[in-house]
Amino acid sequence: MRVNKNFDNLVPNYLFAEVAKRTNDFIAKNPDKKVIKLGIGDVTLPLAPVVVEAMKKGAEELGVKETFKGYPEYEGYDFVRQAVSDYYKSFGVDVNADEVFISDGAKSDCGNIGDIFSADNAVMVTDPVYPVYVDSNIMAGRKIVYADSNESNGFAAMPPEDVKADIIYLCSPNNPTGSAYTYDQLVKWVEYAKKNDAVILYDAAYEAFISENIPRSIYAVEGAKECAIEMCSLSKTAGFTGTRCGYTIVPKTLERDGHNIYSIWYRRQATKFNGVSWPVQCAAAAVFSEEGQKQIKENLEYYKENARIISSAMDELGIYYTGGKNSPYIWLKCPNGMGSWEFFDFLLEKANVVGTPGEGFGKNGAGYFRLTSFGDRDNTIEAVERIKKVIGKK
Amino acid sequence: MRVNKNFDNLVPNYLFAEVAKRTNDFIAKNPDKKVIKLGIGDVTLPLAPVVVEAMKKGAEELGVKETFKGYPEYEGYDFVRQAVSDYYKSFGVDVNADEVFISDGAKSDCGNIGDIFSADNAVMVTDPVYPVYVDSNIMAGRKIVYADSNESNGFAAMPPEDVKADIIYLCSPNNPTGSAYTYDQLVKWVEYAKKNDAVILYDAAYEAFISENIPRSIYAVEGAKECAIEMCSLSKTAGFTGTRCGYTIVPKTLERDGHNIYSIWYRRQATKFNGVSWPVQCAAAAVFSEEGQKQIKENLEYYKENARIISSAMDELGIYYTGGKNSPYIWLKCPNGMGSWEFFDFLLEKANVVGTPGEGFGKNGAGYFRLTSFGDRDNTIEAVERIKKVIGKK
Repeated sequence: MRVNKNFDNLVPNYLFAEVAKRTNDFIAKNPDKKVIKLGIGDVTLPLAPVVVEAMKKGAEELGVKETFKGYPEYEGYDFVRQAVSDYYKSFGVDVNADEVFISDGAKSDCGNIGDIFSADNAVMVTDPVYPVYVDSNIMAGRKIVYADSNESNGFAAMPPEDVKADIIYLCSPNNPTGSAYTYDQLVKWVEYAKKNDAVILYDAAYEAFISENIPRSIYAVEGAKECAIEMCSLSKTAGFTGTRCGYTIVPKTLERDGHNIYSIWYRRQATKFNGVSWPVQCAAAAVFSEEGQKQIKENLEYYKENARIISSAMDELGIYYTGGKNSPYIWLKCPNGMGSWEFFDFLLEKANVVGTPGEGFGKNGAGYFRLTSFGDRDNTIEAVERIKKVIGKK
Repeated sequence: MRVNKNFDNLVPNYLFAEVAKRTNDFIAKNPDKKVIKLGIGDVTLPLAPVVVEAMKKGAEELGVKETFKGYPEYEGYDFVRQAVSDYYKSFGVDVNADEVFISDGAKSDCGNIGDIFSADNAVMVTDPVYPVYVDSNIMAGRKIVYADSNESNGFAAMPPEDVKADIIYLCSPNNPTGSAYTYDQLVKWVEYAKKNDAVILYDAAYEAFISENIPRSIYAVEGAKECAIEMCSLSKTAGFTGTRCGYTIVPKTLERDGHNIYSIWYRRQATKFNGVSWPVQCAAAAVFSEEGQKQIKENLEYYKENARIISSAMDELGIYYTGGKNSPYIWLKCPNGMGSWEFFDFLLEKANVVGTPGEGFGKNGAGYFRLTSFGDRDNTIEAVERIKKVIGKK
């Protein structure tokens, strides 16, 4: 019996463990200090009332013989798929309901989609990067190539014409850099994908944070349905991190290597997945209802205002940053030439504020730092005041 | 870009589609006939009240800031893992809570577990077989070898000493044959696995149907923790087919090829899975509570009584069958030398009863037929009476 030796090639990811360790050590030594955490990527506000009601109703239906639900369809209930399709229509993008696969979250789909591709494809990720794209492909034995995000492109990597890739992960608005692609930038990626006979795996998990007039879906770009799969999630849109529901869109027109990609993904899901819990699908559909959309906007506005508060402070301090406008993340350049971890320690000790060192997301993250807007309003304001004080002083 | 060409080697599975087609054609031509379906593998009774209440409470907690839950642990909440551990203790098997991984169902785990093994392992399945074991490994490019289940071993395949395998899927009580391994039989499989340096993937999805004094877990066998991973699900135990929750047990003592299997599976789940919905985990824990165990027994007894009714009819008719005692499935030999599909058509036309042709589960299923006990009591009784009439007549 041989194990999958590709796992040996994974770099242990100590980022959040190390953040937690240093934070806890500090708290143990300074029990009187109030530490504010702006490092978390998890939401904190509760589900919208209409979503909770739908989930409870779904649970009740499972308790009554006449309304009991057994195995769901692998691809999700039609009314949920239709709700996603209608949601896309609301911002002018045409996605057919039967191209929507409901899942237990974008992370599962991001990882599992690799099943349908050969191990000998080269995978392009932008650096800094959400580690799942890299690790899931290292597990599969694929070669990783990089497109650099840096100050020169506003931390929104563009296709490197000298590097060939078969599979391209894009995340826009980006985790961790908060940058979001414009229409013209996405056109360039679509052109690059077509030229290289590649497939774009587009992670739109943060699309609900987009405020400016930029695409909320790769399918806003003409021709994207011939080269892109889009993944999204209700985690950040509607606070579903603990509820678990996402969706992946595979256009029926997407063909590669003499195969219809939709058919292969369908077969993968039918074989290795058994659909999403009934009450969770009911909750997901409620998010897309008129009332649901109204209610989730309150939470989104709350986070967006936090992002604005943090961004304004950076503006005041004259610190370079990306994100904050179309994203819950503020990706900032550590002041005074400090390294990521150096700034982490500085901020923890002097301001008692926790963020995430950028180098945990890739080499281009060295010297950068991520703050998030998912915290409490009062804490965010207080953290920002403290940051202004200690950085102003230095 | 190359797709995963192993998908080309999958045999299209038309079994249930063909069953549905022939059934619907018959109904269309005979609208006056009352067709009874004993082919389904899905449960029909609602969730237990205490389970529904726990799920509703979980949903409510997501709607309140103070009790809101964000990202769950990849491996499940400790109180659910502990509940599974205590459940095993109740039938005398020692499983540590931290060896339990909570998931969205045994099917996902059965499929995804392959990620941690090399593609060059030989996979053994018993024939007839639950198709997921075969298809998920064909997708990964693994060679499949077979252990025959047939009348000579009571449709409970034993290790073929002349065939070497690295990964062995066992399902007991078995889908589709209903046979369940005795302690001595499992000892032989554990010995075989150890001799071949193989890992057993033990699917215990039907353990709650065991009535006789036989093992409900592979870990009832000494030494199994050095060679077996066990998967189970609440789908059949507690009617969770639409609720979606299962668990996989990976002993920390399981080592292969110089690697600790627990660590690799943990890394796989941390990278490609994001845990199970909070209300679903609350519901799962409720199943294992004292009240939950009492309530789910009512449903289990209902199905078991259906199985007894079908088995008794087979006894009366002198038809060879396996299952029915420790399983919701009755696997019977088609009477008068009929083929699986021949008997399907015969039963549909003469008795207006739908079952599942055995050959859909593998070559050893030819000439056999599966009936299930998941139907309504009155329908089960009526179906059995009709079967007795038409078979007695022939």
